[in-house]
Amino acid sequence: MVNYPHQIRKKIIRTNSDPRQKRVNFANRGMSFETAINDSNGYYLAHGIAVIHKKPTPIQIVKVDYPRRSRAKIVEAYFRQASTTDYSGVFKGYYIDFEAKETRQKTAMPMKNFHAHQIEHMEQVVGQGGICFVLLHFSTLKETYLLPAVALISFYQIDQGSKSMPIAYIREHGYEIEIGGFPSLPYLTIVEKILLGGDSVEQNNH
Amino acid sequence: MVNYPHQIRKKIIRTNSDPRQKRVNFANRGMSFETAINDSNGYYLAHGIAVIHKKPTPIQIVKVDYPRRSRAKIVEAYFRQASTTDYSGVFKGYYIDFEAKETRQKTAMPMKNFHAHQIEHMEQVVGQGGICFVLLHFSTLKETYLLPAVALISFYQIDQGSKSMPIAYIREHGYEIEIGGFPSLPYLTIVEKILLGGDSVEQNNH
Repeated sequence: MVNYPHQIRKKIIRTNSDPRQKRVNFANRGMSFETAINDSNGYYLAHGIAVIHKKPTPIQIVKVDYPRRSRAKIVEAYFRQASTTDYSGVFKGYYIDFEAKETRQKTAMPMKNFHAHQIEHMEQVVGQGGICFVLLHFSTLKETYLLPAVALISFYQIDQGSKSMPIAYIREHGYEIEIGGFPSLPYLTIVEKILLGGDSVEQNNH
Repeated sequence: MVNYPHQIRKKIIRTNSDPRQKRVNFANRGMSFETAINDSNGYYLAHGIAVIHKKPTPIQIVKVDYPRRSRAKIVEAYFRQASTTDYSGVFKGYYIDFEAKETRQKTAMPMKNFHAHQIEHMEQVVGQGGICFVLLHFSTLKETYLLPAVALISFYQIDQGSKSMPIAYIREHGYEIEIGGFPSLPYLTIVEKILLGGDSVEQNNH
């Protein structure tokens, strides 16, 4: 079993002598936050660790043309607001469900990122014993946190007037995802260690 | 605990004296198979029994217009083949994943309904301990079966040349969903009784 946060932090310090680049992460590799998540899900899938996919974007289709000798062409459609979260899947039999949000702000995550429908969905998932959380990326700080849905729901319910969730709250109730190895964003390590209380998935050899 | 199949069958016989309408089902109520599934998922959600949603249709967006003072309009897009299954969610902490297919045929389900990507996805889900199955509806027969994914995968692997899966195979390895009450298609009753070995969800009072 790996003493995960300290080990990774040491590795970062060791491999980066330039203090301006203390934090190596997916952004340094030219990867967006969403790409890093998808990349990690691809890694988990390829290694038989978990089956987690991003759901397709919900679209309201209004008009479809059927040109001769070619496939159906959608010619009028609109983006719909998602009523659930973006990612879901299965990890060791457990249902995994999460949403990912990023901000350039340094001190807080704007709450407009979370819609009432999504919060309600998270409550329902938690009620069914699903493992539900949000991945919060602070791009300027190069910090990414896993915040359990219960902490987000509590904040939402208690501070409904709040326009943003302070990073102090996220640091207190969430877990920083230490970055620098593979996969790009090893969020299941936290799920397994903290939420399931097991060993690190990083050490699995499939 | 309900002795489920017999009780429902008796109810059907009792409430339908016309022998031509021996089987009351969602079709008699003017409901399509997909509507019946969505209706059942809505019932499960409203009663706190499970959180299961249909995934949005995967669409490849090619061109989007941004008309002034109105929302983004997709003007060119195409349907993509789904690489996973249509439905997923959580039931008592378990990951649920299924696909639904219907046919007018009376003796077999055409195998062209299942793409290689979907079979592969089902294998991955089963490998992670998820509960995975297909709901197969024979509209002419008015019969609906829950077939565990392992049985579909076996058939697919062994009889790869087969154009269709005989209903005898489905009856042998699957479970008929008895229809006539609420929800329209009580498939979780089978999941709970057969796959999880618990009590009927119908008797839950939430």
